[in-house]
Amino acid sequence: MNQIELKSLLADRSPETPAGRIVRTLSERGSMSAAQLARLTGLAKSTVSTALSELKRSNMVVETGSESAGSVGRPATTLTLNPEAGTCIGILIGQSEIQVIVADVSHQILSDATAVIEPDYSPARGVEVVRELIDAAYANQWRSPDALLGVGIAVGGPVSPITGEVMRGGIPNWAGVNLHEMFGPMFDAPIFADNESNCSAIAEMTWGAAQGFEDFVLYTLDLGVGGAIVSGGRVLRGIAGGAGEFGHVVIDPDGPLCRCGNRGCLEVYASFREPLAAAERHVGHALRIADVVRLALDGDETCRRLIRQAGEAGGRGLGLIGSVFNPALVVVSGRLASAGALLMDPLAESFERFSLVKGRDMPDFARTLLRPSAFVDNGACMGAVGLVLRHHGQPLNLPH
Amino acid sequence: MNQIELKSLLADRSPETPAGRIVRTLSERGSMSAAQLARLTGLAKSTVSTALSELKRSNMVVETGSESAGSVGRPATTLTLNPEAGTCIGILIGQSEIQVIVADVSHQILSDATAVIEPDYSPARGVEVVRELIDAAYANQWRSPDALLGVGIAVGGPVSPITGEVMRGGIPNWAGVNLHEMFGPMFDAPIFADNESNCSAIAEMTWGAAQGFEDFVLYTLDLGVGGAIVSGGRVLRGIAGGAGEFGHVVIDPDGPLCRCGNRGCLEVYASFREPLAAAERHVGHALRIADVVRLALDGDETCRRLIRQAGEAGGRGLGLIGSVFNPALVVVSGRLASAGALLMDPLAESFERFSLVKGRDMPDFARTLLRPSAFVDNGACMGAVGLVLRHHGQPLNLPH
Repeated sequence: MNQIELKSLLADRSPETPAGRIVRTLSERGSMSAAQLARLTGLAKSTVSTALSELKRSNMVVETGSESAGSVGRPATTLTLNPEAGTCIGILIGQSEIQVIVADVSHQILSDATAVIEPDYSPARGVEVVRELIDAAYANQWRSPDALLGVGIAVGGPVSPITGEVMRGGIPNWAGVNLHEMFGPMFDAPIFADNESNCSAIAEMTWGAAQGFEDFVLYTLDLGVGGAIVSGGRVLRGIAGGAGEFGHVVIDPDGPLCRCGNRGCLEVYASFREPLAAAERHVGHALRIADVVRLALDGDETCRRLIRQAGEAGGRGLGLIGSVFNPALVVVSGRLASAGALLMDPLAESFERFSLVKGRDMPDFARTLLRPSAFVDNGACMGAVGLVLRHHGQPLNLPH
Repeated sequence: MNQIELKSLLADRSPETPAGRIVRTLSERGSMSAAQLARLTGLAKSTVSTALSELKRSNMVVETGSESAGSVGRPATTLTLNPEAGTCIGILIGQSEIQVIVADVSHQILSDATAVIEPDYSPARGVEVVRELIDAAYANQWRSPDALLGVGIAVGGPVSPITGEVMRGGIPNWAGVNLHEMFGPMFDAPIFADNESNCSAIAEMTWGAAQGFEDFVLYTLDLGVGGAIVSGGRVLRGIAGGAGEFGHVVIDPDGPLCRCGNRGCLEVYASFREPLAAAERHVGHALRIADVVRLALDGDETCRRLIRQAGEAGGRGLGLIGSVFNPALVVVSGRLASAGALLMDPLAESFERFSLVKGRDMPDFARTLLRPSAFVDNGACMGAVGLVLRHHGQPLNLPH
């Protein structure tokens, strides 16, 4: 199989050949049938069939099995890119953890490891931990790191889409770091980067609650409040990497000071920071958000009320986002989302109250769907893998 | 020239032939050189050249002149679709006016007429006025209404992208009207429709302040406050036609009641309704917004202050929109925009204050641009023409 050829088909966006479109669609979606490929690429079935013969002959595409196409008819053969064609690395640079996932181009996860790291770690220390995790991942399996197709980096803070620089307002010590300079020497493959929320949106679209949606909003409720906007299958980045920063919409100019420097941001009202502290006072020891969710699901009234109130406050912000986008789908992410109906019910009620378009006035097909995230912990790092598979934006280490 | 063939090239989006891409690009952009066509379509220059020869031979594309490509080199020949290939009709269904513009596919305006109509007019009366204006337009010129390529309708209220129904919250008496049923019998051509703001955004992108931008936000300051979101050259519509309703973002849940039924919407604070009443009390007679702008530009201190305050209030809402999108460009439209710096300066200052990403921290290329609209009055109706030229969404009268 020609490794170079696959790389160039994945990277070359225009002019488009049928083989190029098929390779990119399989890269973005994982496995599917020839009929689905025809529908998604907009190519004629005969064109898909001819191109697939060639791609199978050169071993870039393989048959992986069959899936029933419904209750009638024979099952369709499913196809993926040849998993041996190469690997992708996803890296999460988090507040107090570094995660590395290695996956192949057929969307199979080969390894997933997380290292806890002291808060306020230096970028150099972060890079060292990334290096260790990657070495361990490739040591454990037969695939060569030579067949690396790309690296995606999810960063706990805004990333400039133009320079690849980490902007102020995210993880400490990383503001001003140029990700290309930092990680470029480590990899001989294209590097993609974006902030955590945008990566989570890519994970939801590729494997999670937003599969099949080209337009949706991700809304994150956690210690921070944030999100991402997906339009036409593309995550909006903003001219300075600041799109989707829902937590920093000012809802009361005279409100309390926010960590961003403005006053009365949504995050001040909808962050779970204070409720978490209240829950800790209630039980008398330190808790993580997951513990509060567990206690609430087990029936603790105080924890239930704290989550319900977070849903109400979050819904106010979501109403605002609803009036801006009137989206087909909102995926609610962040660690609170695992509370299920306990969070989602008051959130939906408050969303309805603060939206311009009321769901109750609309027929089913014109109502905004609210769904909890399909991921508990590793959404952002999976999304970093997705940055590569979906060829998100301009790679940092290629000329603009 | 084959009229049918041009219609099908304009309508058929996939699979794409080079001729189809060229026709659609010329339809969207008006005139341009072969080199610009190659850049915008992503086709090789030789492919463009071959396809253009064929399109010129069949008389679908014509040479219209030449433009200097800069300070050096010979001027490039510019091309457009053959103006005789067909006309497009743009219709504005406004609060108290109906406007009809007829343009040809080379982007030349053939007629532009407005009829003032009593507020609270019935849809049937509106359709009658539209019919009269169109008959007058075609009576005055040699072109046959047979060569009609499409009709665009801009409506002063939300339009469902799925059913083509006018939703509640816009012009009186039109809620629930199905535009396809209303206008379908009148035309043997595809009908496109969207709300006024979305049409204005299309006008700015095609002929106005947003030319060359694929991603921007339109922000309207007038008696109402609203806007539109453009992403990847596509105007976002929202699942129920409610995208871009910036005026109905709730900024104070305990604030005054808004006409939409919620409390404390941005429009309550940033609408020019009350300032207009204040200006009328100041001068002692009825005024239009344009009069207040004129008085302010002539030095009337009260009117200057009212516009400055409107800019400050509008900037707060724009800061909110900025934190959601971090857009490359905001086009400020509405009748207040003609006040120029008098509005734009306080607006920019207040935008900076309420934004998460501060322009002062950013290099030039990462700053949000604020520009006043290029249109004073007929932006929305020009945009209705643009709905046809850009083939915006699914035509109302074609099967979904």
